[in-house]
Amino acid sequence: MSERHFDQKLGDLKQRMLKMAGAVEQSIQEAVRSLTTRDNALAQKVISDEKDIDQMEIEIEEEALTIFALRQPVASDLRLIAAVIKANTDLERINDKAIDIAQEALTLNRLPLLKPFIDIPRMADVAQWMVKNALDAFVNRDVALADAVRLRDDELDNLRDQIFRELLTYMMVDPATIDRAIHLILISRHLERIGDHASNIAEDVVYVVQGRIVRHRQEELRKSAENALSSGH
Amino acid sequence: MSERHFDQKLGDLKQRMLKMAGAVEQSIQEAVRSLTTRDNALAQKVISDEKDIDQMEIEIEEEALTIFALRQPVASDLRLIAAVIKANTDLERINDKAIDIAQEALTLNRLPLLKPFIDIPRMADVAQWMVKNALDAFVNRDVALADAVRLRDDELDNLRDQIFRELLTYMMVDPATIDRAIHLILISRHLERIGDHASNIAEDVVYVVQGRIVRHRQEELRKSAENALSSGH
Repeated sequence: MSERHFDQKLGDLKQRMLKMAGAVEQSIQEAVRSLTTRDNALAQKVISDEKDIDQMEIEIEEEALTIFALRQPVASDLRLIAAVIKANTDLERINDKAIDIAQEALTLNRLPLLKPFIDIPRMADVAQWMVKNALDAFVNRDVALADAVRLRDDELDNLRDQIFRELLTYMMVDPATIDRAIHLILISRHLERIGDHASNIAEDVVYVVQGRIVRHRQEELRKSAENALSSGH
Repeated sequence: MSERHFDQKLGDLKQRMLKMAGAVEQSIQEAVRSLTTRDNALAQKVISDEKDIDQMEIEIEEEALTIFALRQPVASDLRLIAAVIKANTDLERINDKAIDIAQEALTLNRLPLLKPFIDIPRMADVAQWMVKNALDAFVNRDVALADAVRLRDDELDNLRDQIFRELLTYMMVDPATIDRAIHLILISRHLERIGDHASNIAEDVVYVVQGRIVRHRQEELRKSAENALSSGH
């Protein structure tokens, strides 16, 4: 396969990944909206969209393997193929979490409304932002954007803790809210997991660009961000 | 690289994966024991073992890429490398869940004992069995064992639902138990996720052996199991 043909195939693959990411982002958004607007039909749509997204995942993986099978691979090719396979899997698992949220919404929509949904819509916005920008960073090999994605993960963790504490108070005061509150807590955990998967994709960007495995090194990232801030960047 | 040299390298890689799986299984076991015996030191051990297991993951991935970079890859090579990378990532995420459990244990151990831990130890046994056998199936290319692993995932889901219902009753009767009950519910979710990751690894076995992507096809598996049973196998 010529270099030009390879680049073109790779470009197609990236387009497919962006398309899948767009579909997954939409699922996150719709899942949370099916909760806040108590829209069961929308929750069902998220659940039934799964098969399309699963199909996209399978096609991307097969396409990636086909492209590289036609080529004598060099180290950077192998890093790229590993990263594509992992990012693809992470995207599909993000969609699984959107489905989990839609399923919790179906349960909650049968019960009386607890109250406005605390910081869950805000968590959903952050999570969706992370997915979108992780994928943009991935296809554009943008390490700075990937770092920005990874740093926002802390925000999601803080929101999750805050939601947990608030709902705990609710339940203690009025045990009739327990069932509903637990489902909201589980939704916040699903959103947190979406952020984790987006961070995984962001870590793969650094790996592809710099040839360095950066996962398990959140601490390092935090330090380098602090250094950048304190040196006035 | 000669075929013999390649097979030997691949054998080494499998040994590394089994060793990592052994360490991960131990973490699951210790995390749950740190809860049932209220042993904070053991929970801390699980948490501090993370860096060794993360290091194993990084080495396995680098080793896998190195082996294949020295070879003109054929389709089955690429499937194998994709499967190794994915199984390796799943193993590391199983360990993350063991750490989550250890962290919940540290929280619960500070609170008065709720009661014997319902079916959580049983869930842990099933999850650990699934991890062990998923890896055995992976290195031995044993599709029948991989199918057995995937089928046990339902058992884990049923136990999770049962635990949820039992703890809900507890909380309703005595709101003072809410905080502790929620942490137990979260532990049951972590164990469920371990089962999901073990199922992913089992699916990769079918993919490597048969060249067929079987994920998202739980229903198909259930039907083939029913057919096998009804035809007297």
